[in-house]
Amino acid sequence: MTSNESGQGQLFAGAAEADMATKKAGKAGSSQKSPAKKAGSKKRTETAESMAKRQREISVSEFFTKNRHLLGFDSPRKALLTAVKEAVDNSLDACEEARIAPDLEVKIERIGSNEKQFRMIVEDNGPGIVKTQVPHVFGRLLYGSKFHRLRQSRGQQGIGISAAGMYGQLTTGQPVKVRSKAGRRAVPLEFTIRIDTAKNRPEFSDKPIEWDKKHGTEVAIPMEGEYRRGQRSIQEFLKLMAVANPHVNLKFTEPDGTVTEYQRNTNELPHEVEEIKPHPHGVELGILLKMIQESENRTTSAFLQQDFSRVGPTVAKEICEKAGVKPTTNPRRLDAKTVGRLKDAIDDTKIKAPPLSCIAPIGEDLIIKGLKKEVEADVYMAASRKPVVYRGRPFAVEVGIAYGRPGDTLEMTDSGKIVASSNKQKNDELLMGNADEPVRLIRFANRVPLVFQQSACAISKAVINTNWRNYGLQQPRGALPIGPMVIFVHIASVWVPFTSESKEAIAGYDEIMDELKRALMDCGRKLGKHVRKGKKLANEFKKRNYITMYIPHVVEALKDILELDDKEVDKATTNLTDVLERSRKL
Amino acid sequence: MTSNESGQGQLFAGAAEADMATKKAGKAGSSQKSPAKKAGSKKRTETAESMAKRQREISVSEFFTKNRHLLGFDSPRKALLTAVKEAVDNSLDACEEARIAPDLEVKIERIGSNEKQFRMIVEDNGPGIVKTQVPHVFGRLLYGSKFHRLRQSRGQQGIGISAAGMYGQLTTGQPVKVRSKAGRRAVPLEFTIRIDTAKNRPEFSDKPIEWDKKHGTEVAIPMEGEYRRGQRSIQEFLKLMAVANPHVNLKFTEPDGTVTEYQRNTNELPHEVEEIKPHPHGVELGILLKMIQESENRTTSAFLQQDFSRVGPTVAKEICEKAGVKPTTNPRRLDAKTVGRLKDAIDDTKIKAPPLSCIAPIGEDLIIKGLKKEVEADVYMAASRKPVVYRGRPFAVEVGIAYGRPGDTLEMTDSGKIVASSNKQKNDELLMGNADEPVRLIRFANRVPLVFQQSACAISKAVINTNWRNYGLQQPRGALPIGPMVIFVHIASVWVPFTSESKEAIAGYDEIMDELKRALMDCGRKLGKHVRKGKKLANEFKKRNYITMYIPHVVEALKDILELDDKEVDKATTNLTDVLERSRKL
Repeated sequence: MTSNESGQGQLFAGAAEADMATKKAGKAGSSQKSPAKKAGSKKRTETAESMAKRQREISVSEFFTKNRHLLGFDSPRKALLTAVKEAVDNSLDACEEARIAPDLEVKIERIGSNEKQFRMIVEDNGPGIVKTQVPHVFGRLLYGSKFHRLRQSRGQQGIGISAAGMYGQLTTGQPVKVRSKAGRRAVPLEFTIRIDTAKNRPEFSDKPIEWDKKHGTEVAIPMEGEYRRGQRSIQEFLKLMAVANPHVNLKFTEPDGTVTEYQRNTNELPHEVEEIKPHPHGVELGILLKMIQESENRTTSAFLQQDFSRVGPTVAKEICEKAGVKPTTNPRRLDAKTVGRLKDAIDDTKIKAPPLSCIAPIGEDLIIKGLKKEVEADVYMAASRKPVVYRGRPFAVEVGIAYGRPGDTLEMTDSGKIVASSNKQKNDELLMGNADEPVRLIRFANRVPLVFQQSACAISKAVINTNWRNYGLQQPRGALPIGPMVIFVHIASVWVPFTSESKEAIAGYDEIMDELKRALMDCGRKLGKHVRKGKKLANEFKKRNYITMYIPHVVEALKDILELDDKEVDKATTNLTDVLERSRKL
Repeated sequence: MTSNESGQGQLFAGAAEADMATKKAGKAGSSQKSPAKKAGSKKRTETAESMAKRQREISVSEFFTKNRHLLGFDSPRKALLTAVKEAVDNSLDACEEARIAPDLEVKIERIGSNEKQFRMIVEDNGPGIVKTQVPHVFGRLLYGSKFHRLRQSRGQQGIGISAAGMYGQLTTGQPVKVRSKAGRRAVPLEFTIRIDTAKNRPEFSDKPIEWDKKHGTEVAIPMEGEYRRGQRSIQEFLKLMAVANPHVNLKFTEPDGTVTEYQRNTNELPHEVEEIKPHPHGVELGILLKMIQESENRTTSAFLQQDFSRVGPTVAKEICEKAGVKPTTNPRRLDAKTVGRLKDAIDDTKIKAPPLSCIAPIGEDLIIKGLKKEVEADVYMAASRKPVVYRGRPFAVEVGIAYGRPGDTLEMTDSGKIVASSNKQKNDELLMGNADEPVRLIRFANRVPLVFQQSACAISKAVINTNWRNYGLQQPRGALPIGPMVIFVHIASVWVPFTSESKEAIAGYDEIMDELKRALMDCGRKLGKHVRKGKKLANEFKKRNYITMYIPHVVEALKDILELDDKEVDKATTNLTDVLERSRKL
């Protein structure tokens, strides 16, 4: 017997089948004896049949409603930020894909006098969304264009923005409002969208509106929230977003009307990323079998060349030969065992690394530019590594460092110790801590700041596992190094493996950990030179202080011995100081 | 316009619609000007239409195939353990629900000579699964009986075992085999099941077999894996499972044929848990609206009483009065605003806490019994707190402690310091570390051991945040305490909020963190008494050592002064020792 399910009318089909099963099967299985029976429960004993009655499908919306913390909606405060993040991600992806320099407006406003309810509004100048797609993009989980493509983007799952709407609906009972104008000549439309969570489908209405805009999208989500500034706030998220996206213009309006603007720093958009085909070395047997089923190619050779990247006629021939398969065989005729040999042959064949046009790292210059804009420091440096590959997926790691607080000056304490003394008040917005505090780590994945779950993230683990003592910093065991410093780390990839759907931390795959460590060391070496120079300076300062302290005494002694007059004393002092400065090159 | 989607024939419907949209909409939106245009990309510019073409549904199986690390299948080693865990969870849930004392067999065997391929087999004496349900339970993600019920169980999502099968299929191309006999008179069947990941539906066949068993289920999954012993191994997982489930008999066969048996320690099954209705205080506006839609009750008063727990006629009347709703009004006639008032009225009304029959804590006696069975220690203690409620969901926290290595003896070093010296080799299976190592923390949720992601777990955070110095232990800042000790922590709940689908760590909701801390302190106080007694003993030991050291010298002096003979010297020594022992109560 083979399943004849067609994928139609599936909702709760399981429950219906189970009901039938129960009617047929009667009471078999209820006569079991077991030690438990002695304990003597008065309740009806469950059987396979009574249990089957309750088996049913769980819709993905129901699942995430209950597990909302997986999506970043576990507290009212975090919920607002997560919603902003998802909306901004989508806007930036759409603008860049249409090669439009992004102009965004983010607004958080109170709903009436309710202390706990807010409306989050994000408006962009992107290409808009066509009418038929709007309800699905905003009213359905696991729906989108980015999941099936091998190319860098901020969004990748088709969950985020509809999850934000679902959370809003859950906590306020109110629908999502979306405005969209899909190009100059398109009619602007306003949609009102609710999600039927039991079905994971949108219920919606739309109407034409007046909207003085060439093209773009605006999403407004009412939700229970809590608005605060400071660490892990929307403000901080947007500030970090500006660091990693210097091509973005963004205006942010807070509930009290305060406006912050982030001006674009470069007119250059990130280079356009191209979609690639899977690389043969990343493919698993099950995936290979599925690709063969879905392929339109009728020969094994054509299948290998057309459905994978980096396979030409010669490589295809080599693979076929190793697997003992004729290149002209229809791949669908291969049995599972032969496909297994084909996979082994692929793994055994040297194939060029996948094309790197699918990812767009930021680059050392723009990292430094971005850091300079938002972090005051003495010195900036960056290391952007060449892309590499894990499981057939290209990725690149970049590290930037901003070091030293420009307001700090060197001072000698009574005990002769040199310390950096800060003339600035501690300020959350400075991003950088004091000299005796752990460095500030800012993490990014595909240009999106990661603000939660720092300790669970592969980036943090790599920073902690790097020996910063090599570069002149203090570092307690198993902790971040200490110093007036911001470390910026960015991973750009066609597929970032996050530790949960909320995309807050990166999973520690070995290949990623290794590359993170290399990038940190590259940038660390640059830092080391500077820190050592700084230490040398501090040492000089110390020595000079001692010598300067003794010069008057030396001169006094000379005066007595050589019977110098006051003028000669002044001259001797000047000369000695001069000699000191020349000899120590100060 | 309202969506007329019926939930039928939805697969890729979005893509089809998008195609139509593209044909209609032409090229609007492609004439935009932006700074980016100057950068001059040669590639075709994307528009709302071209982007819409790629929008489509992502099946939940596709999602988890790509994000397999969310399910615990990120490495071959972890994959084997995760699969065992999911199968054992299901078997134990089924046995307990049918009130059968569980007899399980777990077997890991190599497939042929392949170094990397294994078959995982788990067999139980549970009630079996009815024929129509088997393919869905094992061949479909998000399908099951536990998600929609408020009652404690190990499984809760309907993902685990089908995910294991999907991983097996992906890495070996082979299907899952399931045997089931749903009661004494049922025909035993064997199923061969594959998952169509694009549809998230099973493809299967079944046939009757000979199976000498009264009732039960066996699942066999071939998969790529890596078999190792030691920390975070299957062996360790099963050992911990036995600690928290003293009512289980389990036989484990390793690939090399080694057999380990865990014998049941009690004939008492965990008390039978009852399903409860949602508690009104946990309900959110969106959920309330949905419950009203789905309710069969025609008056608001009946709806409140029938669809929630702990609402009787008086409470229902009070809520209705506060909300200004007539108790006889059909709840479906209430507009969203009035339902909002109803929710506020619910929050404003005192309602009895939910019934606690839905959860089954282990209890202090069985925790201690379980620890004694698997951990050798000097002393055992436990604290099982009364269940409490978060978001309308009852949960209970239990802590157990095993302290002191019985093999350790006190010794005085040359410098007069007392140390515990271990006469045992370090042994992974002992579970307990040395006196100078961090304590061993073992975590459980609904009686399932959590073996991964310790640092991300609320339980670990609560242990670290507890001040163990109060109880006589050393504890470095921000770390686990130090000492020869095992801390056992169990959360029993109708819904455990895990940080990912792989159920490896618990999310840190405030209410859970608070209760964890209280339970740890309860047990910590018991520990404190013992540790202090131990310290007093160590001090006595030290003093006695000094005195014993001096007795011969004192006697020698007495001999000279009093001119004692040898016999008298012996007597004096005995007397002095005797006085010492009596005075110090040794």
